[in-house]
Amino acid sequence: MKTKAIVYRAHGAPSSVAHLEEIELPQLQPNQVRVRVLFAPINPADLNAIEGTYPIRPSSWPAVPGGEGAGIVEEAGSEVTALEPGKLVLLPRAAGSWCEQTIVPADSLVAVPRGIPPEQAAMLRVNPATALRMLLDFVDLQPGEWIIQNAANSAVGRAVIQIAHARGLKTLNVVRRPELINELKSAGADAVLLEGDTLDENIQAATGGAPVRLGLNSVGGESALRLANVLAEGGTIVTFGAMGRQPLRIPNGLLIFNDLRWRGFWVSRWYEKASADARSAMFGELFALAQRGVVRSPVEKIYPLEEIGAALARVQEGGRAGKILLSPGK
Amino acid sequence: MKTKAIVYRAHGAPSSVAHLEEIELPQLQPNQVRVRVLFAPINPADLNAIEGTYPIRPSSWPAVPGGEGAGIVEEAGSEVTALEPGKLVLLPRAAGSWCEQTIVPADSLVAVPRGIPPEQAAMLRVNPATALRMLLDFVDLQPGEWIIQNAANSAVGRAVIQIAHARGLKTLNVVRRPELINELKSAGADAVLLEGDTLDENIQAATGGAPVRLGLNSVGGESALRLANVLAEGGTIVTFGAMGRQPLRIPNGLLIFNDLRWRGFWVSRWYEKASADARSAMFGELFALAQRGVVRSPVEKIYPLEEIGAALARVQEGGRAGKILLSPGK
Repeated sequence: MKTKAIVYRAHGAPSSVAHLEEIELPQLQPNQVRVRVLFAPINPADLNAIEGTYPIRPSSWPAVPGGEGAGIVEEAGSEVTALEPGKLVLLPRAAGSWCEQTIVPADSLVAVPRGIPPEQAAMLRVNPATALRMLLDFVDLQPGEWIIQNAANSAVGRAVIQIAHARGLKTLNVVRRPELINELKSAGADAVLLEGDTLDENIQAATGGAPVRLGLNSVGGESALRLANVLAEGGTIVTFGAMGRQPLRIPNGLLIFNDLRWRGFWVSRWYEKASADARSAMFGELFALAQRGVVRSPVEKIYPLEEIGAALARVQEGGRAGKILLSPGK
Repeated sequence: MKTKAIVYRAHGAPSSVAHLEEIELPQLQPNQVRVRVLFAPINPADLNAIEGTYPIRPSSWPAVPGGEGAGIVEEAGSEVTALEPGKLVLLPRAAGSWCEQTIVPADSLVAVPRGIPPEQAAMLRVNPATALRMLLDFVDLQPGEWIIQNAANSAVGRAVIQIAHARGLKTLNVVRRPELINELKSAGADAVLLEGDTLDENIQAATGGAPVRLGLNSVGGESALRLANVLAEGGTIVTFGAMGRQPLRIPNGLLIFNDLRWRGFWVSRWYEKASADARSAMFGELFALAQRGVVRSPVEKIYPLEEIGAALARVQEGGRAGKILLSPGK
């Protein structure tokens, strides 16, 4: 059986090396499931993977990009009992979601409960999961406490605002574009600051001087240092992205005298190291957040696979209001 | 009563602003003790304090430098029961130890048990304490595990080698001078590497590929990054000094993908935050280490207060084999 897929045969600029092809699907094995992909987002990590700057390399060539997505079970192997055709599922990272259909081990799929739109399900496994873990696993935050993040309009940033708000945490959000201030406030942000602002004064005004013990950084360079400088003694700054492509520059005194703790987070490692129970609990939380409408990722535009060029071009542009999704199997 | 003391009246280069004077001792209060200072080391933090680059500023002027030292109780106030004349004691950080005699609250002194030479006692409270805490408080190291440090010939570095060796830990030690290799090995270092070496290969040869989960950094800049690059996934690098006076430069990927943890340690904060029990336990451990001869800080030269200029000049030179001590009250 043939299927349409985005493939690349060598690392390089996504718009140069990734293109649509018809590829042959392998024979369905007894423990496998064939899934028709409904939605697959284009995440920054997908672009890095194509570029060859991501630590996980394709296991075979040609490679199909796409670290997450949601689809419908079309056919289940003879030994598969837990999933039947028609079921909405999340694809594993290894599947490569930018394709019309894919064949994966049944036990690598996560069944999505009712009440979650497929395009929202498709965006849960990476970014809201990152937001949730960073809010839970680094600092024992108490309701009413403030946290700070840069790139607050990113997919993770939006999820941080939503989840923090639902948990009674307050968010200081640093963005680059003034037009995002009101938008993020209406999405639940408690305070929104511009990258150029004097953070200290504005934060003091917002928090009334309450200590900020957690900073979330996906920019790097100067922006990260600005976050670090407003954290309370003993605070933790978690780096999970490097949009600015600048290394962190840390004055030694921030570590020695302010006891700042610099950590990193990578959701792929989290999934890799988590026990089956921990993963189940994570998906349970993510699904509950999506069902309650707490986590809802705005979508800028949905493209069919045929328009991958336009989709990749749009992703690289600034000023988006949400994610770019592919809709391969619709 | 008058006493001789090194004083400074403004921040600046130590050799310019610090000089010997006769100052008037205040009246002894009932809860206070007058101590004759036997030995007081010149630590890097003392120089930073004089320069004004240390976060703790003098509480009054003129200021007397010296963050640690050991002395003999000369006179005890009427309410003091725990200390009597002749007792060897450690001075608190706030005392200012670069003086012949000083008056301090009795409860800020720590009585030194028998069997510890006064010059060794004088050097316990800062550097061996730093070494001990960094080996105990950041990574749950198991006997046989390797750690790595730069500036391994510093006072802390030497104490790290000694304490690690006594606890069955193995040390990778990075130094700048080849002549230190054999010297540190004879002091208990398991492997000594030069800053210019290809650390990866040499460490692989020494450890046989065992993971290194703790790095201790008192240099900063490139040297710190070289340590970080050899740490195992999930490893911790603790910064407690910045001899190189260069900020840390951290590639984002080391945090995100390698899960490296960057922490800082400052022994003054440790003492400030520790409970009375924790401080007692710390001094108990330090004294036991000194009594057993595990911790022994080499001394390069001892100067009387009158030769403060020569002492400060010698401290600034490289190539020392041990600490520079002042012997104010001898």
